[in-house]
Amino acid sequence: MSQKLKIADKEFTSRLFTGTGKFSSSHLMKEALLASESELITVALKRVDVANEEDDILSHLNHNHINLLPNTSGVRTAKEAVFAAELSREALETNWVKLEIHPDPRYLLPDPIETLKAAEELVKLGFVVMPYIHADPVLCKRLEEVGVQCVMPLGAPIGSNKGLKTVDFLEIIIEQSNVPVIVDAGIGAPSHAAYAMELGADAVLVNTAIAVSQTPVAMAKAFKMAVEAGRMAYEAKLAPRSEMAIASSPLTSFLS
Amino acid sequence: MSQKLKIADKEFTSRLFTGTGKFSSSHLMKEALLASESELITVALKRVDVANEEDDILSHLNHNHINLLPNTSGVRTAKEAVFAAELSREALETNWVKLEIHPDPRYLLPDPIETLKAAEELVKLGFVVMPYIHADPVLCKRLEEVGVQCVMPLGAPIGSNKGLKTVDFLEIIIEQSNVPVIVDAGIGAPSHAAYAMELGADAVLVNTAIAVSQTPVAMAKAFKMAVEAGRMAYEAKLAPRSEMAIASSPLTSFLS
Amino acid sequence: MSQKLKIADKEFTSRLFTGTGKFSSSHLMKEALLASESELITVALKRVDVANEEDDILSHLNHNHINLLPNTSGVRTAKEAVFAAELSREALETNWVKLEIHPDPRYLLPDPIETLKAAEELVKLGFVVMPYIHADPVLCKRLEEVGVQCVMPLGAPIGSNKGLKTVDFLEIIIEQSNVPVIVDAGIGAPSHAAYAMELGADAVLVNTAIAVSQTPVAMAKAFKMAVEAGRMAYEAKLAPRSEMAIASSPLTSFLS
Amino acid sequence: MSQKLKIADKEFTSRLFTGTGKFSSSHLMKEALLASESELITVALKRVDVANEEDDILSHLNHNHINLLPNTSGVRTAKEAVFAAELSREALETNWVKLEIHPDPRYLLPDPIETLKAAEELVKLGFVVMPYIHADPVLCKRLEEVGVQCVMPLGAPIGSNKGLKTVDFLEIIIEQSNVPVIVDAGIGAPSHAAYAMELGADAVLVNTAIAVSQTPVAMAKAFKMAVEAGRMAYEAKLAPRSEMAIASSPLTSFLS
Repeated sequence: MSQKLKIADKEFTSRLFTGTGKFSSSHLMKEALLASESELITVALKRVDVANEEDDILSHLNHNHINLLPNTSGVRTAKEAVFAAELSREALETNWVKLEIHPDPRYLLPDPIETLKAAEELVKLGFVVMPYIHADPVLCKRLEEVGVQCVMPLGAPIGSNKGLKTVDFLEIIIEQSNVPVIVDAGIGAPSHAAYAMELGADAVLVNTAIAVSQTPVAMAKAFKMAVEAGRMAYEAKLAPRSEMAIASSPLTSFLS
Repeated sequence: MSQKLKIADKEFTSRLFTGTGKFSSSHLMKEALLASESELITVALKRVDVANEEDDILSHLNHNHINLLPNTSGVRTAKEAVFAAELSREALETNWVKLEIHPDPRYLLPDPIETLKAAEELVKLGFVVMPYIHADPVLCKRLEEVGVQCVMPLGAPIGSNKGLKTVDFLEIIIEQSNVPVIVDAGIGAPSHAAYAMELGADAVLVNTAIAVSQTPVAMAKAFKMAVEAGRMAYEAKLAPRSEMAIASSPLTSFLS
Repeated sequence: MSQKLKIADKEFTSRLFTGTGKFSSSHLMKEALLASESELITVALKRVDVANEEDDILSHLNHNHINLLPNTSGVRTAKEAVFAAELSREALETNWVKLEIHPDPRYLLPDPIETLKAAEELVKLGFVVMPYIHADPVLCKRLEEVGVQCVMPLGAPIGSNKGLKTVDFLEIIIEQSNVPVIVDAGIGAPSHAAYAMELGADAVLVNTAIAVSQTPVAMAKAFKMAVEAGRMAYEAKLAPRSEMAIASSPLTSFLS
Repeated sequence: MSQKLKIADKEFTSRLFTGTGKFSSSHLMKEALLASESELITVALKRVDVANEEDDILSHLNHNHINLLPNTSGVRTAKEAVFAAELSREALETNWVKLEIHPDPRYLLPDPIETLKAAEELVKLGFVVMPYIHADPVLCKRLEEVGVQCVMPLGAPIGSNKGLKTVDFLEIIIEQSNVPVIVDAGIGAPSHAAYAMELGADAVLVNTAIAVSQTPVAMAKAFKMAVEAGRMAYEAKLAPRSEMAIASSPLTSFLS
């Protein structure tokens, strides 16, 4: 079978990471996320009622194979991000954090400057930092240098479902990175997820495309299979492209 | 589970059709095609030694779930195609035929005129005709009118592994067709196959990308999963694309 | 300066062919077509009032440098096309004809079978035949064999303004053709026209994108320049693409 | 005619900016840059022999309509960039600077962190700062906030000639920017330049594609026309795209 993915001290069999936003009900969310077989599920701290032990989201995700990944969605600066991460560490008893700093409410694109600043500080504070960023190869290397455990470049704006609009840069990032590369944001169809994996991404994060599908449970399963297919193809090595046709069947004149 | 595909009087659980060309050994071909779970496998009549009951290819594909689909690869005219189809009907005891007429040896692109002519005659002769054609929506309708059981438009030149370079026209074909649409040629990666299925193609045919991979058995399995994923996503209905970002997580200012 | 284009016995300085449809007024049409400097302008026979010497469209296009190219738009079969061509030859005193047979009113895609049949007959009848077709390389060769004077493959459905959605096949057509290749339909922006010329197309035909622009005269001029730019770049030979960056400026460490 | 472009206190008629790298001779460089009609030409400080009044490059570009734009190519940090800019201000008697900080020699992609830091300091020191950056919309806004006079997002890696591989993000940048947006790097053909202008970019910078063409003078002229065509089309407003065909010619049945 496929190689496992290791981030920090955890190993993952599934290379499909998911999120909890936009589902029409908690029940549907639970069913879809179980169908996805995802082992890392991001949750916005603001959605977790930390004072309430019966918090709806957390109770639905209380499964052995599921690791919760709090994210800092909603923060606008490095300072706010660090504060959010510390709150989440206390509330969810995890030092993992998905670092998201996107000041612009229209396209939700990440801020490279604040993200690097927050990443550096969070690493010093002992966090396993998973930063959501533009597909900027130089920024990825700088984040790696300050000690993040992976990089999460975007394929397209969050929730746009446009697919891999940054593929020329994802290829460079994957080629250069010494930490896992997880394509985040923009993946809107199983074929997009398979493509990211075929390029050599270590994992993908999918939320909107599952949550707002008409049938989230089936869509979650479709993404699970596509991610496995893409990874398997990557490990099996794809055949090269050719400018010319190459016959599959013998072409000597039929009657000769 | 997914809907079954019906062509003529046969039902298919698998929507991945495959071929027998270019494998480095018959053994590897057999292992890969079994891993693909394909139920319709095309074989060039020229590769079948019709006088030899122990013919290598046929003996390897002698499984209950496998239907052989003789193809007319190597013919250059309608007349040759009809002759080849009749030979194959006798040799393989099937009235199914994949009609391929590609006079140009460099790009192996199909001839629309000869293909329509041969299709019309073969239908009259009682064949189940599956024509390989350019992604030409008008030609597809004309073939449908003469009674073919499906259409097989190309994604890109055979063996090029370039993927779906005809997507604007495949969409029109799928929208207009009253017979199954099977995307043939050019599919070079599981993500391409998933994409075709997400568009609403009824099946895909993959040969080169499996056969010339470094690990055909794993690649066959990857394609199998990708086709299932794409079909499942199509049935579950993909979420729409958006020009703007749509937040997955709440964006009210974190500290508010 | 750029090489001239020769079709049949006529030489063209301009490689931008245009049409007369969809303009909001005849005056605006005239101004735009003059600004385009186009020397070959297609006109639907139905729009020409052959009994009326003062016919509006014809009177506006009565310039020495302009050649009218009647088209068969509206016909659905080879027979109708031949009849239309004969009518137009009489009415407009030209044996040139743009052969368009598109039975489907939704996408207006051309019929390959009827087009070849009509082309063959029209050539025999002494016409200079310019067939509008799908970007099908085999069909192009067959048309060439029956004696058409050029081929006019589409970039995308007429009036869609989508650009070159058939580029993988246009490249093959251009490589193989012994008659001029004119990209017709789908060109929606000057960049599309320049791209077609850079690929080696001999000319482009643009109508909708000029006619329905908010400022047709300026748009006509923009297309004129883009076509010249693309042709000039083709003749000057474009620099190759590279997977890696190649510095424009010296990169020895600044302070060394 | 087209609107003029204003950056800081200068107005430009030409929206094609160029560079001096990679030409096979100074003479050819001069001829090509004159043919381009470019009014802003970037030059690496390292290539200018500041002690030599007869410096080759400078003497060739000594024309009234040409403004020299020193760039900081070769620096790796903000500190080095500021030092380079100060040297160039003294040597070339201009406070304009193209800020380029690309630590990685393979893809020459810009460093967002060092670039913002240098930009902030250079603005304080009175420079007109033109920063070369990744097509990162958030970074563009932050640069605008510190006072740069334009932003120069890349289309693809420098010298790759790949065209606009960042178009989804260039569109956001153009929509949001309050300073001119100049697409820099990756433009390899006149059609790419026209496309950037059609999107609403204020200018493009082209160097490699002109310099390494087989015929730089003709290619320079081709780019000049393409940039004008693209700008003219932008101002004239392009017609919208359509999923369906829209007939150019009347389609009422021909014989009716």
